[in-house]
This record gives sequence, structure tokens and C-alpha cells, in this order.
Amino acid sequence: MGSADYVYPSTNVERAPRVVIPPPQSSMKSLKYNLKETFFPDDPLRQFKNQTTSRRFVLGLKYFFPIFDWAPSYTLDFLKSDFIAGITIASLAIPQGISYAKLANLPPILGLYSSFIPPLVYAMMGSSRDLAVGTVAVASLLTASMLGNVVNANENPKLYLHLAFTATFVAGVFQASLGLLRLGFIVDFLSHATIIGFMAGAATVVIMQQLKGILGLNHFTHSTDLVSVMRSVFTQTHQWRWESAVLGFGFLFFLLTTRYFSKRKPKYFWVSAMAPLTSVILGSLLVYLTHAEKHGVQVCYSSTSRLPPSSPNSSASYVLPRGLVDPTTQSPWTLIASPEWSLWIGNLKKGLNPLSFTDLVFVSPYLTTAIKTGIITGVIALAEGIAVGRSFAMFKNYHIDGNKEMIAFGTMNIVGSCTSCYLTTGPFSRSAVNYNAGCKTAVSNVVMALAVMVTLLFLTPLFHYTPLVVLSSIIISAMLGLLDYEAAIHLWTVDKFDFIVCISAYAGVVFASVEIGLVIAVAISLLRLLLFVARPKTFILGNIPNSMIYRNVEQYLNTSSVPGVLILEIDAPIYFANSGYLRERIARWVDDEEDKLKSSGETSLQYVIINMGAVGNIDTSGISMLEEVKKVMDRRGLKLVLANPGAEVMKKLNKSKFIEKIGQEWIHLTVGEAVEACDFMLHRCSPSPLKEESEAYNKV
Amino acid sequence: MGSADYVYPSTNVERAPRVVIPPPQSSMKSLKYNLKETFFPDDPLRQFKNQTTSRRFVLGLKYFFPIFDWAPSYTLDFLKSDFIAGITIASLAIPQGISYAKLANLPPILGLYSSFIPPLVYAMMGSSRDLAVGTVAVASLLTASMLGNVVNANENPKLYLHLAFTATFVAGVFQASLGLLRLGFIVDFLSHATIIGFMAGAATVVIMQQLKGILGLNHFTHSTDLVSVMRSVFTQTHQWRWESAVLGFGFLFFLLTTRYFSKRKPKYFWVSAMAPLTSVILGSLLVYLTHAEKHGVQVCYSSTSRLPPSSPNSSASYVLPRGLVDPTTQSPWTLIASPEWSLWIGNLKKGLNPLSFTDLVFVSPYLTTAIKTGIITGVIALAEGIAVGRSFAMFKNYHIDGNKEMIAFGTMNIVGSCTSCYLTTGPFSRSAVNYNAGCKTAVSNVVMALAVMVTLLFLTPLFHYTPLVVLSSIIISAMLGLLDYEAAIHLWTVDKFDFIVCISAYAGVVFASVEIGLVIAVAISLLRLLLFVARPKTFILGNIPNSMIYRNVEQYLNTSSVPGVLILEIDAPIYFANSGYLRERIARWVDDEEDKLKSSGETSLQYVIINMGAVGNIDTSGISMLEEVKKVMDRRGLKLVLANPGAEVMKKLNKSKFIEKIGQEWIHLTVGEAVEACDFMLHRCSPSPLKEESEAYNKV
Repeated sequence: MGSADYVYPSTNVERAPRVVIPPPQSSMKSLKYNLKETFFPDDPLRQFKNQTTSRRFVLGLKYFFPIFDWAPSYTLDFLKSDFIAGITIASLAIPQGISYAKLANLPPILGLYSSFIPPLVYAMMGSSRDLAVGTVAVASLLTASMLGNVVNANENPKLYLHLAFTATFVAGVFQASLGLLRLGFIVDFLSHATIIGFMAGAATVVIMQQLKGILGLNHFTHSTDLVSVMRSVFTQTHQWRWESAVLGFGFLFFLLTTRYFSKRKPKYFWVSAMAPLTSVILGSLLVYLTHAEKHGVQVCYSSTSRLPPSSPNSSASYVLPRGLVDPTTQSPWTLIASPEWSLWIGNLKKGLNPLSFTDLVFVSPYLTTAIKTGIITGVIALAEGIAVGRSFAMFKNYHIDGNKEMIAFGTMNIVGSCTSCYLTTGPFSRSAVNYNAGCKTAVSNVVMALAVMVTLLFLTPLFHYTPLVVLSSIIISAMLGLLDYEAAIHLWTVDKFDFIVCISAYAGVVFASVEIGLVIAVAISLLRLLLFVARPKTFILGNIPNSMIYRNVEQYLNTSSVPGVLILEIDAPIYFANSGYLRERIARWVDDEEDKLKSSGETSLQYVIINMGAVGNIDTSGISMLEEVKKVMDRRGLKLVLANPGAEVMKKLNKSKFIEKIGQEWIHLTVGEAVEACDFMLHRCSPSPLKEESEAYNKV
Repeated sequence: MGSADYVYPSTNVERAPRVVIPPPQSSMKSLKYNLKETFFPDDPLRQFKNQTTSRRFVLGLKYFFPIFDWAPSYTLDFLKSDFIAGITIASLAIPQGISYAKLANLPPILGLYSSFIPPLVYAMMGSSRDLAVGTVAVASLLTASMLGNVVNANENPKLYLHLAFTATFVAGVFQASLGLLRLGFIVDFLSHATIIGFMAGAATVVIMQQLKGILGLNHFTHSTDLVSVMRSVFTQTHQWRWESAVLGFGFLFFLLTTRYFSKRKPKYFWVSAMAPLTSVILGSLLVYLTHAEKHGVQVCYSSTSRLPPSSPNSSASYVLPRGLVDPTTQSPWTLIASPEWSLWIGNLKKGLNPLSFTDLVFVSPYLTTAIKTGIITGVIALAEGIAVGRSFAMFKNYHIDGNKEMIAFGTMNIVGSCTSCYLTTGPFSRSAVNYNAGCKTAVSNVVMALAVMVTLLFLTPLFHYTPLVVLSSIIISAMLGLLDYEAAIHLWTVDKFDFIVCISAYAGVVFASVEIGLVIAVAISLLRLLLFVARPKTFILGNIPNSMIYRNVEQYLNTSSVPGVLILEIDAPIYFANSGYLRERIARWVDDEEDKLKSSGETSLQYVIINMGAVGNIDTSGISMLEEVKKVMDRRGLKLVLANPGAEVMKKLNKSKFIEKIGQEWIHLTVGEAVEACDFMLHRCSPSPLKEESEAYNKV
């Protein structure tokens, strides 16, 4: 294929530039290329190219510990902004931490522990400057529901706790290995629509769970679906406690109004940020002063008690059961062994995270549950954390490496699981506050961690009297933000199918369970991809007046068809999954066209041009389909012409000798040229109306 | 968008034909369209359009019973050819039937039964003129291995038999419902490559199983994988019987030579067609005369005995065990209850198919196994039958409706399961013989059925002495035809990935099990589809000299780049699964380009054109990806330009307001015009080199 072919432009067939077969490439090389595209699309190693070994080491260190990258250039102004942001998110982190821990049926103090160590780890390894690390409602709920299926947190709190740690550990290992194995794209299979529906569903479920706290109920269903929750709520209307309900709705109103206010006036972001802590303090004081815990307002320390809170025992949680040594001298978790001590869990004792790697269980009948929980919660957490990190990186225009983030999250959770923390990630609400508070770097996380540390060391007893109902209203107000109905409406207007995915995810979560909802949504999304490939769009092309351009006649209504020529376009790769369909469909297009011509008595059909421009790839089934189509066309006295096959396709058509069968001269670079060629044959070189047109057009 | 826009050709931006948003379409209508494309791609109802009711009824009858279509025009010449073909395939059907029945651990006579009723059904309902109906090796083997897992055919033959009937019934129902529900495309997901590998693997397994017969072994492993078969063969070398081995290889040699001969001289097709029957007769005579059954040559009637065939009892199968009534007066299958009677199964008694619908079991602990077996074997049978029918229809240029065929196969198997037949389909080997024998219509199947009937009525006793070893050699010679190494080589040369699929299917079947092999192959095939969508090809376009055409620079080496403009093409729909990747990849393309320009010191990059021509569809994740890309470009001082988005894409970009964001004037009909527009902006209306070029070209 010498350049001679190109000297003259395409006014007749022979001298038109031809479709070339791409230069042969060793399969080794193409394999390498494909592997790179699959696992290193963002080319993280580009910076390492032609560097000295020592430099490479430094770069590698900076790659895994971005802190070395930004720390040197850290300034005092940064510290100021980060300090403010840190304090702000701490004031949010403490109440939220306690609330979510309760949501996960774990000792509230775990929520504080989880806001101390993990943020420090992330500050070193994370590449986002706006992410605020902490526990999230959805993951907490998932932990509760999945572990709750096999172990009752009240009857066997120790085992439950250990399983929670183990699940966190598994999640961390899973996240880190996804990052290390460059499998980050697995998270991409949770589509935007799926996540919206899923999150909204989870939020709904969480809110329903809070009815327990708001209504001050002692007994509540362990299943999360709408039906059983409603049954459990309305079968014990006589148990409803108006005191706690009033308190709850009062605080909820307070929280929502502050949120609304801050939304209206962004510079007062701190109002809504401080609101939760304020309500916790107010609530605790209220209880302390009025002894409301005696009147059906459950408070933290007795929350996991299986005795009604109004019973005298419940307030006796400070008296040690006879025959047991002073708990403070032992690992706090070993004490939870006996049911009596489950009273004690609620208790928030002073002190920093105790080590817990000895509590990880790998030889338990429940190990599989722990692993399953870990993997599912891990993926959800990743999806949220990375989405959040990316969106804020967008605003501030810096890049986030998904796989690198996964390693950071993974390490964070592995370390966390060994220091009495459960699953943490970058929750949206908290990161948004962090961003609005004007954080500059991950130092805001460090400040938050220090603030939490101070709380752990000195202030925990203050939370003894925190009423559950306040925590419930904090959770509810946070969850209401996740019910993103506007996004759902947007999906409906733009893409009906995505809307279906979203709704089914929501319904699945609300009516069945969180896991089922997730599975349904992912399955539907994948089904859609498969259907796209299995049923590709095919359409007729027409000529756009005064041009040599051919486009979809359904899109461009003023196109004109070319007498005797049918022009088709296939809009997807030709694979085994659709080759059968395409065979049928092409035949049908031809039939329809011939019927139309017959009825209108026009010149009969003689050429069928297939525009392969959009056919990204073809496999052997596809090729044999083309061969069949060719045979059929020949038998019907029609000539098959191909236009603009891509590199991959040409390569394979050549290898399979199809090009020889159809004839190189019947493969054209553009539809225009293909039409010209057919036209040329039809009118035996007499200039066709079409050509005149195009010349007229060229005159301009 | 009036036609005014089109009056003037594209010499500058303003007057260029614009990309239009397709006319709005009610979502109801598009849903209807999609459903039609998904389930009625071949538009089977077109013939019913504007017809009278009575006419419609006739057409409907002809649709479901094609016999009414061709019977009226049936001629004597047709009968002649069909008769010859029918007799030929009968002579093949009888020995093959017996052999495959034994392969399925079923009474040999079932093979004959299955060649009598089903062909008659197919003759009425099938639309293929060349298909010869009968049992197939692979399905038989699958039945044996899957049912064998739960029931031992020797210890509990009656249950085993009933499960086989039930599985056949299930397969029939499944096939028919696939056809009725228009879900035929499910079969398409078994790609060509998968089938080749799978068939070859199954053939290998079947051949290995025949070692039992060839070597005259009594005890043989029930598992089908290479390792355990080889162990079972070589652990009992002392059991090998040289007599049967000699006999086996002798007949095998005979069969292969005849086959080779017929391949060389197609007009002597009957030689190889008759060979199997000849060897059966020869073999039986030999045994009858030499009483070889006493010397380690197992024969049909004692084959399922668990006593060594040389033992005196085995030949006593005609003497009824005491205390039992004459079997002939009862349903033959009720007799198989007691183990003694398992001797009796081997026996081929005269008479036509006994009814067996009373033997279908639907309340058995093994029902699930029967259902699983039915569905898997049913799909495999469909895949083979339809592929065969289609390929012969190709030769003779008539159309086959996949879904209609499925209904035919389904009914055939439902009826079969009620008349003591097991799974039947259109085996390739037999249909090829039928085709070569010059069959004209499905009447050849009727002739075959009648021939088999005669055999059943009068000749069955002749098969008593048929040595198993002959059946084994018949099976082997048939299976060798399925080891299609040439096809595998073709796959390797054309498409490495298909080759991998093929090989993994083969390996899976040979080393693990038939089901596993199938699952592996389908999984890999689907994974490929997903990977295609998850990692679409993106490449740079360059200008083909003296034209306004832009193509892949890797395919067309003589293209020239446009200064200051980067032209990208995306080669797949933009979906949630790949939007993350594309974001990264586009950014990387831009980085690379800018690095290149910096190093070479050319004019800096100013425009990035993305050719959307090959983007068939886009979902909300994809759109938000585009929005992000736009933001990034803006920040980098680059202008994003789109070229030729399709109807679907335009519709969604419009609904999501992206068009407003990017500006209608930055969406062009062709890459050429997009480049012109950028160029125009770059050189402030001064005619660009490019334009001169293109005018020079237009002058011609």
C-alpha cells in the first residue's frame, strides 16, 4: 500500500485512498498493551521513568505516603484553617461516632476509638485533602444486620465484638489488595444510579431503625425490611414513650432547622456542624437534671441491657457484679464475656484505644460470615470514600488515584481492626463540613483525632447520660440528607433505564435487605451491558443534502436515500452474543427495503453498504456471520460493501481471509466513497446526480 | 433546526450542517421498539399482516406445522431421494442408537425407540429439510454423568430410567418454552469457540469411556475426568482382555478407512454410512459363531450385569426368576425394579415403544437433579441441533427460524419422554449423511423411523449377540470427527481470545467435568464482553492527506496531525463500567500530547476533539464523566469539541443539559468540520493550510 494510492483524491473508485490493514503487531506486544490498559490505565509509573534509584525510592515513598509530598511545604496559614476545620468535624465526629456505633450494635465508645486512630493513618497515606475519616451509617447498619444474623449482640456481646473486628480486618485486607492488584475498577461496576438508590434505601432502613430509640421501645425486630419493622412498631403501640418521642422530635426539629439555615447561608456552616454536639450536651444535661432515664428515656450506658431501663438494676451498672475483679485492670473486651457484663458495655470508660489484634478470630464457625460482611461493607465503604474524595478533588482541581486510595483505606482499616476500631471510610456529610470549614490538607484529620483523644481521656463520662433518642435524631437528620430524590428525578429525565436500576436498588434494600438490594442493582446493571452487546442498534443511513456525509435517517430527517443502494450502520462490536441477531436483522432490513422499492416501483436494490465505523471489534462468530451474510447477498444478487472498518476489525477480516472473499475494492474508507463506487458501477461511469451534487458543493 | 442550515456546505463554522437532536419519541414507543428488537428480531409476524382471519389460521398452522407447507407440493422424485436417504440414515441410526443408549447407561433398546417416535414428530414440526433426528453422544454422556452422581444405574435401574425420562421431559418443556417465550437468543451465548472446545472435550471424554468396552473391563470409574479414567484403566491392566481389544481395534480400523474413503470420494458416501451396521452384523455373527462372549467379549444383553460376563448366570437372562409373572404382559419398565432384572434390561425384546408417561417422576428427592440434567442437556442439544439445521439451510438457501425450531425440538422431546425415548436432537454426523444421501424433505426422517420400526418389530433379537466392543468402536469413530483441531487452529490465527475460550472449555471438560467445562467457557466469554465495555479502545485520529477524512493513526501510518488540536476516538458506549477509565485515559492522552509538544516545542495544545461516532449509547455516569472532562479541560485552558454524536447520545446530552454547557456550536457533524472550526478560530478566519488542501482536492 504505497503512498501513491493517496496522491489523487476520491473522484472515482480506483484512486480512492484505501482502507489499510494495520501493521502486524506481535501478539505479545498487544497482550502487554491490553494488560496495561486494564490494570494501569492511569499509568502511575510514568513519574518513575528515567529516574535514579534513590530518586525512585523517594518517589515511591511519596507515592505510598503522600504526607512526605505535602508536609515540607506545609505553612502556618494552612495549620490555622486545618485547625478550625479539625475542631469543627470533631464536634460532628463525636456524636456521630457514638450514634453509628449504636447502629452497629457495638459499644458506643468504639465510635470514638474509630475517630482517633484511622484518621491518623489516613493523614499519612491518603491523597485527598478534604476527606474526613470516620464511621458511616450504611456500613454500620450492614455490620449489625449481617453479623446479627448469626450472633445476638446482647446475648453474646464478646463474640459479636470479635466478629466485628475480624470483619473490619477482612475489609481492610480486601480493600488494600484491590488497590495493590490494581483491581480498583471493580468498584466502577457500582454505577452512579445503583449507589443513589442503594444509599437512599439504606438511609430509609436506618431511619426506620431509629423508631426504636425515638419511641423508646425495648424490644425491636432484628430484620431491617419495611414490613417487619412496621409490624414491630405498631404491634407494641402501648409501649410507646411519649417523653422520648417529644424529646426526639424536638431535637430533630432543631437539627433540621440549623441544617436548613446553614444551607441558606454557607458562611454559617459551623451552625449545623455544631448542632449535633450541642444537642448531645443539652440532652445529657436534661437527663442528668430531670433523671429522665427513670421515665422511659433510655440512655447510653444501659442501652444494651435486656432489662427494661426503668427497672432499678439498670442504674446499678457501676456496681460490679459479685465475684469479678475490677474491670479496669483487664482488657475491657475480655469482660464482656458474661451476659451480666453486657450492661457494662454501654459504659464509656476513659482511656485510649486498647489493642485488639488478639481479639481477631480466624478459627470460628462464624468466620465465613465475618469474611462476607468484611468484603461487602469494604466495597460499599470504598465506593463511598472514593466517590467523595474524587468529587472534592474535582472542585479543588487535584488528582486522586483510586487504587492508591484503596491501599490507604485498606491499611487504615487493618490498623483500626487491631486498635478496637470498626470499619471507617470517608463519609460524605463529614467531608462536606470539612471542605466548607476550609480545610487545606489532611492535617484537619489529625486535629480531629487529637480532639477525640482529649475526649477519650477526659470527657467520656459526660456521655453517660446521653439519651439514645438524641443519637437517634442525629442519625435521622444525617440520613435525610442521603434521600437524594432530585438525583432520582434527574435519572428519570435523562435515562429511564438508570432510573429503573436506581429504584430496584432502593426497593430491594427497603423491602428485602441491604445485601439483596445491592445484588439486584448490580445484576440489572450488568444485564443492561449484556443486552447492549446482545441487541446492538442498527439503522439506515441517508445522504445529508449537498454533502458526502451519511447519517442515521431517524436522527436527520432531511436525508435523501441513494437509489439502488441500502446503507446500514451497526453500532456495537460484533460478537457471538449478537452475531445471530445481526444476521436476522440485516436480512430484515434488506427485505423491508426491497418490499418498499417493489411497492413504490423504484429501481431495484443492488448494493448493501455496511458502515463498520462503530464496530469496535469482531470475534470469529462475528466473522462467520459476515461470511453468511455475504453468501445470502450473493444469492439474492446483491453486492455487499463495507465502509470504514477499524484497525482491529481489518486485522481479523484479513487473517480470516474475508477480505479476499469480499474483494479489497469493496471495502471503502468512507460511506461516501462506497456510495460513489456503487454509483459508478450503476451508471457505468456516467457522472451520477450525487457526484454532480458533491462537485457543485466542492465549487464553493 | 430548519433545512436552512443545510443550504450551504461546510466552508466555515456558522453555516455547517449541525448535529441535530433526534425528534422526541414517547418512551412507550421506544420501549415497544426495544422489546420487539429483543424478542422478535426476525419479525415472525410479518406474514400475518393484513390477512383475513381464516388465512391467518392457515398461516399459523403452517407456521407451527411446516409439513402443511411442503406436503401439498411433494412429488414422487422427492420420495425417491428421501427414501434412499432415509434407509441410509436408518442403517446409521440403529447401531448409533444402541451405542449412545449404552453410553447413557440406559437399556440399548431405548436408542431404537428414540429413533422411531421423535423423527416422526420432527417431520411434522421441524422446518429443516436436512436434519436427521436422533440421540447424540454428548447429551447421552451428560445424562449418564449427571444422573449417575445421584443414582447408580446398575443398583437402581428403574429409578435411573425414570429420572432419565423425567430429565428428557424437562428438557423438552425447557426447549419449547424458550421458543415460545422467544428467548432463543440465550443459545447465542454459547459462542462458536465455546462449542468447538466443548464438543472436542466431550468427544475426548466419550472416547476415554470406551476404553472400558475396548479393553473388556468390568469395573470402571463413574467419573469422567482424564485422571480418574486413566487411573482406573492402568490400575487393572491384568483385567485387560486381548480378544476384545483386537476385535475393537479391528473394527475401528475398518470404520475409519471407510470414512476416509468416503471423504475422498463423496459419491460413495454410503460406504461409510453402511459401515457401522455392517460391523454390528459382522460382530454379532462372529460372537454367535465363536461364542466369544465366553472369552471376555461382553455382549449387549449381559452388559449391565454386575457379574463377570463369563459367569454362567449371565447367559441365563431369558429364564425368568422364580415367582415373577411373564414380563411381556407388563410394562417392561416395571420389571426392572429388582436387581435380578437389571440383567434383563440389556435384553432387546421385540415390540414398539411402550408408553412411559406414567414413569415420569415429579415427587422424587432426585427431582432437582433431573431438572438440572434436563436443562443443561436441553441447551446443549438445542445448540447442536440449531447450529446443524442452520448450516445446512445455508447451503440450500432456505431460512430457519431458531425459536420455531426450539418449539419443534421441545415437542419432540416431550412426546419422546412419554414414549420411552430419551433426549434427541439433530446430530451433525447423521444430518451430514442425510444431506449427502440427497434428502429433499423431512420425509427422510419418516423413512428412517419406519425402518427402525421394522427393526423393532422383527429384528431386535439379532442384536443380542452384538459385542459391546463393536459399539465402542462405532462411538469412537463417530467421536473422532468432533475433534476439530483445524477449527481450533483457525481460532488461534484469527482471534487469540476465542482460542483461549475454546481451550479452557476443552480443558474444563476433560480435566474437571462436562458441566464445569461449559460453565468456565461461558463465564470467560461473558467476562470478555464485560471487559470490552469496561476497557474500550481509545485512539488518536490523524488527517489522511488530501482529504478531510480523519482516521486512527495506528492503522493509517501516513496521516498528519493538526497543529494545536488533539483528536480522540472512543470505541464503545460510555457506561458506568468504563466512565472512570475513560476519564483517566482521556486525561492521559492529553498529558502525553502536551509532553510531546513541549519536548518538540510546537504550538501548544488548544483543542481536544472527541469523535463520538462509535459511541452507541451513554448513561448518566457517562454524562457526568463528560462533564468532569469538560471542567478539567476548561481548567487547563483547553476547549472540548464533540464530533458526530449519534441519536441516542444526542438525546441524552440534550436532556442532561450538557449541550448547553458545551455549546451547540462545539458539536460538529464530522471530525473534518470540527477541525475546520478549531482551525478557523486558531487562525482568525485566515484560510488554513488544511482548507487549501481540501480545496485543492475539491478542484479535481
